[in-house]
Amino acid sequence: MLILNADEMWQAVSLPKVMDTVEEAYRIFAKGEFFMPDRPVVTHGDDTLLYMPCFTEKCFGTKVLTLFPANPAKGFPYIDGLMLLNDAESGKTVSIMDGGCLTAMRTGAVGGVGMRCFSPASAHTVGVIGAGKQGFYQALYATCARDIRHIYLYDSFPGKDFGPYVASLQAALGGKQPEIHVCGSPEELLANSEIVVTASPATSPVMPNDTALLKGKCFVAIGSYKPTMRELPNAIWELVDHVYTELPFAMEESGDLSQPLEDGIITEDRVRYIGDYLLAHPVPVPPPPGTTTYFKSVGMGLLDLCVADFIYHEALRTGMGQKVRF
Amino acid sequence: MLILNADEMWQAVSLPKVMDTVEEAYRIFAKGEFFMPDRPVVTHGDDTLLYMPCFTEKCFGTKVLTLFPANPAKGFPYIDGLMLLNDAESGKTVSIMDGGCLTAMRTGAVGGVGMRCFSPASAHTVGVIGAGKQGFYQALYATCARDIRHIYLYDSFPGKDFGPYVASLQAALGGKQPEIHVCGSPEELLANSEIVVTASPATSPVMPNDTALLKGKCFVAIGSYKPTMRELPNAIWELVDHVYTELPFAMEESGDLSQPLEDGIITEDRVRYIGDYLLAHPVPVPPPPGTTTYFKSVGMGLLDLCVADFIYHEALRTGMGQKVRF
Repeated sequence: MLILNADEMWQAVSLPKVMDTVEEAYRIFAKGEFFMPDRPVVTHGDDTLLYMPCFTEKCFGTKVLTLFPANPAKGFPYIDGLMLLNDAESGKTVSIMDGGCLTAMRTGAVGGVGMRCFSPASAHTVGVIGAGKQGFYQALYATCARDIRHIYLYDSFPGKDFGPYVASLQAALGGKQPEIHVCGSPEELLANSEIVVTASPATSPVMPNDTALLKGKCFVAIGSYKPTMRELPNAIWELVDHVYTELPFAMEESGDLSQPLEDGIITEDRVRYIGDYLLAHPVPVPPPPGTTTYFKSVGMGLLDLCVADFIYHEALRTGMGQKVRF
Repeated sequence: MLILNADEMWQAVSLPKVMDTVEEAYRIFAKGEFFMPDRPVVTHGDDTLLYMPCFTEKCFGTKVLTLFPANPAKGFPYIDGLMLLNDAESGKTVSIMDGGCLTAMRTGAVGGVGMRCFSPASAHTVGVIGAGKQGFYQALYATCARDIRHIYLYDSFPGKDFGPYVASLQAALGGKQPEIHVCGSPEELLANSEIVVTASPATSPVMPNDTALLKGKCFVAIGSYKPTMRELPNAIWELVDHVYTELPFAMEESGDLSQPLEDGIITEDRVRYIGDYLLAHPVPVPPPPGTTTYFKSVGMGLLDLCVADFIYHEALRTGMGQKVRF
């Protein structure tokens, strides 16, 4: 059995290949070559324990996540957990890896794939609203998806010290060194960014309900994963024909879709699936500059499973990880 | 994080202390000092994936089991899996151990606790019906619960070669060497055994419906864990006032209880709980020789959690297991 901690996982892979794996996972989804049951949730006081099982033809696995709201105040991560990767033939667990790292790695790659599909090939600027862990990896993958020269950051947390965050991001960016700018308002970020990622825990839109500000940008929204959570204002629907997402359940799960549907702002035919897009486009065809596009991700266990299987095989190939006798 | 494989788990503990831990788990159950949600089940073709979450005041965890019916024919175990043990404060996984081993270890200890509570202190003979993995550990723990001098084995599998099984059992018994006898029929086993353990996958009773054959024995039934499964005949209810089990759900889960309840052979007031018994009896009070008693176990996640926590702390204390950087 191979144990992979976060450092070993990042060292085992290249980010563009993680994005390729996410694209392939979306195609597996579109072809129906998977089995992804409902994810069991256990609630214990304020804490949540989440099991995300998924099966493909070659493997299966479970991401077991803990969501402990009191953790950040104690210096522990809010989202933590493990990914168990199993052999489809024997059922045996072949690898255990860091679930929080896997979540960040695949969610970053999901954002990157959204940019590959829906942002202009010439985009040089990305703005990230919500400068937390997920936003960090969105910025990192943006630089793999496009030739990013400026990263704009905004966070609504009062008095946030961006110093250590920017330093970590610069370290992670390695050889590439786009300029990093901290914005004082969402308006400032929007005015400068061709690609706009939202990665916040917001329960109301994080930008003004103003078509003039939103027009011509590629929006990648990854925050809202509950019906009560919301990041994008209704004005977006005046600018796009369709939103792309992962699966029909997103219309129930994310307030970014469920609220405009309930309010009659949109109908379900405005929702399309990125798997269908990627099946029809083996190589994504980026839109021309100035097109407004909208990709809303809620994630799914199939992404974790495919990325975990990729990490495992890359780790085997490169001799990464800790082998245990089991 | 501490990884414990099956060998390391057995080496870390003493069996009487595992039984003490199971007794304590039953007392925690009786006091209500736990949270054990429904166990989510995922069915994929013939295969089953089972999550068994449980919380106590000091820890929580999940046993993740795979039940793959085609596995034995391929040389893999039917039941396999992992136990994840987490710290209650941070949610962090502190240990991962072999789930199949934990199941056998705690189910054996459950049988042993049943014998401590409900078999005469003077019992020297035990019969095990169903010479599989679970039956193996029932025999082993019987020798810790009582001064066993004769072990009787019966298995309905035609032409079963008992040689390797008996040799393994002798090896596991170490210094103690009760005589091991293979019986040609359940009748022969019943005629010789004061304690009778059933550990079979049977769907109809594994012994005759005859009060004369059953009278005066301590029955420990651990096989039937589905409403369609059955090990004990109705005659047992003419010999005992009460059956002891773990929790009310056993009346739905096990055919040994659900079928006689449905058929009107017994009413629910004939079912009592071992946790209540152990809370009332800090030291079990064995019945006099010749008393017929009946303990039916279906298991529960709380037993896995408490035994896993015990193994983990014993492993830490004795330097057992494989530490990984996580």
